[in-house]
Amino acid sequence: MDYIFSERISSLKPSAIREILKATSDPSVIPFAAGNPDSEAFPIDEVREISQKIFADKPILALQYGITEGYAPLREKIREILKADKNIGTENDDIIITSGATQIMDLMTKVFCNFGDTVVCETPSFIGSLNCFRSYGCKLKGVPVEADGMNTDALEETLKTTDKVKFIYTIPNFQNPSGATMSLQKRKKLYELAVKYGVMILEDDPYGDTRVTGEALPSIKSMDTEGIVCYAGSFSKVLAPGIRIGYVCAPKEVISKMTVGKQAADTHSTMFSQILVYDWLCTTDLPSHLEKIRAIYRRKLNLMCNLTEEKLGGFVEFVRPEGGLFVWCKLPENVKMLEFVGKCVENKLALVPGTAFAVNPGDAEDCFRMNFSTPSDEQIVKGMDILEKVKESFIG
Amino acid sequence: MDYIFSERISSLKPSAIREILKATSDPSVIPFAAGNPDSEAFPIDEVREISQKIFADKPILALQYGITEGYAPLREKIREILKADKNIGTENDDIIITSGATQIMDLMTKVFCNFGDTVVCETPSFIGSLNCFRSYGCKLKGVPVEADGMNTDALEETLKTTDKVKFIYTIPNFQNPSGATMSLQKRKKLYELAVKYGVMILEDDPYGDTRVTGEALPSIKSMDTEGIVCYAGSFSKVLAPGIRIGYVCAPKEVISKMTVGKQAADTHSTMFSQILVYDWLCTTDLPSHLEKIRAIYRRKLNLMCNLTEEKLGGFVEFVRPEGGLFVWCKLPENVKMLEFVGKCVENKLALVPGTAFAVNPGDAEDCFRMNFSTPSDEQIVKGMDILEKVKESFIG
Repeated sequence: MDYIFSERISSLKPSAIREILKATSDPSVIPFAAGNPDSEAFPIDEVREISQKIFADKPILALQYGITEGYAPLREKIREILKADKNIGTENDDIIITSGATQIMDLMTKVFCNFGDTVVCETPSFIGSLNCFRSYGCKLKGVPVEADGMNTDALEETLKTTDKVKFIYTIPNFQNPSGATMSLQKRKKLYELAVKYGVMILEDDPYGDTRVTGEALPSIKSMDTEGIVCYAGSFSKVLAPGIRIGYVCAPKEVISKMTVGKQAADTHSTMFSQILVYDWLCTTDLPSHLEKIRAIYRRKLNLMCNLTEEKLGGFVEFVRPEGGLFVWCKLPENVKMLEFVGKCVENKLALVPGTAFAVNPGDAEDCFRMNFSTPSDEQIVKGMDILEKVKESFIG
Repeated sequence: MDYIFSERISSLKPSAIREILKATSDPSVIPFAAGNPDSEAFPIDEVREISQKIFADKPILALQYGITEGYAPLREKIREILKADKNIGTENDDIIITSGATQIMDLMTKVFCNFGDTVVCETPSFIGSLNCFRSYGCKLKGVPVEADGMNTDALEETLKTTDKVKFIYTIPNFQNPSGATMSLQKRKKLYELAVKYGVMILEDDPYGDTRVTGEALPSIKSMDTEGIVCYAGSFSKVLAPGIRIGYVCAPKEVISKMTVGKQAADTHSTMFSQILVYDWLCTTDLPSHLEKIRAIYRRKLNLMCNLTEEKLGGFVEFVRPEGGLFVWCKLPENVKMLEFVGKCVENKLALVPGTAFAVNPGDAEDCFRMNFSTPSDEQIVKGMDILEKVKESFIG
């Protein structure tokens, strides 16, 4: 049979990162291309204990169907934590539990976008989200991301000149892949512009709790008096990604539509994972757990950034991120990025070409992304040695 | 803000069943409207033991990111079981693990259908699937389901006269809601027609393993020499629904597109659930587990059907199903179904109006669905007493 696939799926390429990961699944290759949280950061003993209790005390709750919106005590707990820690959420907001943060992008697009509508994104941006928007036949308009976040002049120009923009997608904290954190001023400006042009904001904050230095900035959602911001959170970096639990805090009317969308997508998220997160939030000392995670990431971020300065200083440009999992490097003009990355792979170091994150063809052609959470400290040192060697072959 | 939602989501109504369930969440209401498997059928002790081992022996595997296609040992195990038990799967087929069977309907539609394409369905049919197809802007064409399955003459007429049919959706075993099992002859005919008209088949088989009487019939997928059948399986009824694990066996090219679609939808399914299912399949005696489940459902199905004959015989028409979870009743012409169902709810018995499963307005207006897996034996007896009382008020 000659299969005729839908337009949306025919236009979608498998994630370049996942393809690279497959190509470099050889365990001797150093994984700077991945994006896995460090498994050292998983609270394994607590998870083991809680899971035993779940299957001893409430097995049927964990095994039976649940409701689409999510496990009610978990939704309430997240509501409390968001309010107390981040001043997020009003009486007009509600929460839905999702199957990882990826599903948030899916539900947002499903709820707001018709085929051919536009989503405004930072460029470069997280390829998983871009592919999700593309999977609904959305057009993407890229706004350059600078060291202090999205260029808001370019954003206004884009909003002024583009039809059918349904929402702005932003990762304000330690953006993936650029590592940039949006300044408070730009957060305010972005919110103002969204109000002015009547578009929604999807604020994606998977990394916010991994800040290793500096002071946390207010989220855009915390400024939301108009009910235009959907805040996307995740337990992938704070607890573990394999459990696939994310959440959205958004206006009730939006959550109600997302619930209808999720019902048709996967009925509800895994009950065991939802109860696990709830019981964990109730029993763990969250601030000290977060400090433990941050200590791991602080060590590895500093190791990678110090070595980048030491070994690639003057060759690549990069901004030391204040958190997240990634370091973004810009190559000199005379170095062809794909050739450079190819040489690294030949030398058993996997990087992601910047173009994988491009919204428009031509973006990020001189950049690559490095991840410091997946490799061990030893692998980070080895990988940086390989980068130095490859650099030398380029500057001859 | 006045939210402008997408066309697809605006046209989608929340599942009537879920709304009824909310309205009747009062625990004193007898739940003939639900569709939960009987929690007596969950292998709780085995699940408890396996989960302890998972978090003792391979916690990182259970907590870290996995690949989109699913946990490789589970995919291989399912491939073996399908081949051995049901003669399903060829060298040209592959398997993807999904977040419950609902996601299969989602991926199938995402991969094959553009906005405005047609899906041919049995009418009545499972509302969750119908809503999923609708959520992609698909038109639905209903083909009446008879006691021995889809009317294949009407199917051919529909295929002959309808443009852009992308696939035929069928639940051949103990169809939801009608309870009908498609005869072998009709299975063959349906397959032939799909080949003749060049359309795919989505064979949804969530209930196949719950057969309580009679001989299992060959699946349509087992006849698939042309690579046109996607077989949808689920562990919701065999193990437990809260773990959200389903699977598709389909041609490799289709699975590859579904993988791209799933990557953008939820990255991968919960790792713990996938490992749990795999370890369970490796350690349990599946035939004796299935016999245990069947014994429970046989008892409850017979109880409900015997009481239906005894108390509603001559009033409603119904066909005793050979498995599944539902009994489908047709009311006499002079009884208004919604009034009848309303009267039952007043008397604290929840039923689902047949119209909830209608593909076309006007279908199943004189029918209602009863579920025997959720209520206890005692509740089944009480519920049938209420039905008898309500019946008497109608025949006065």
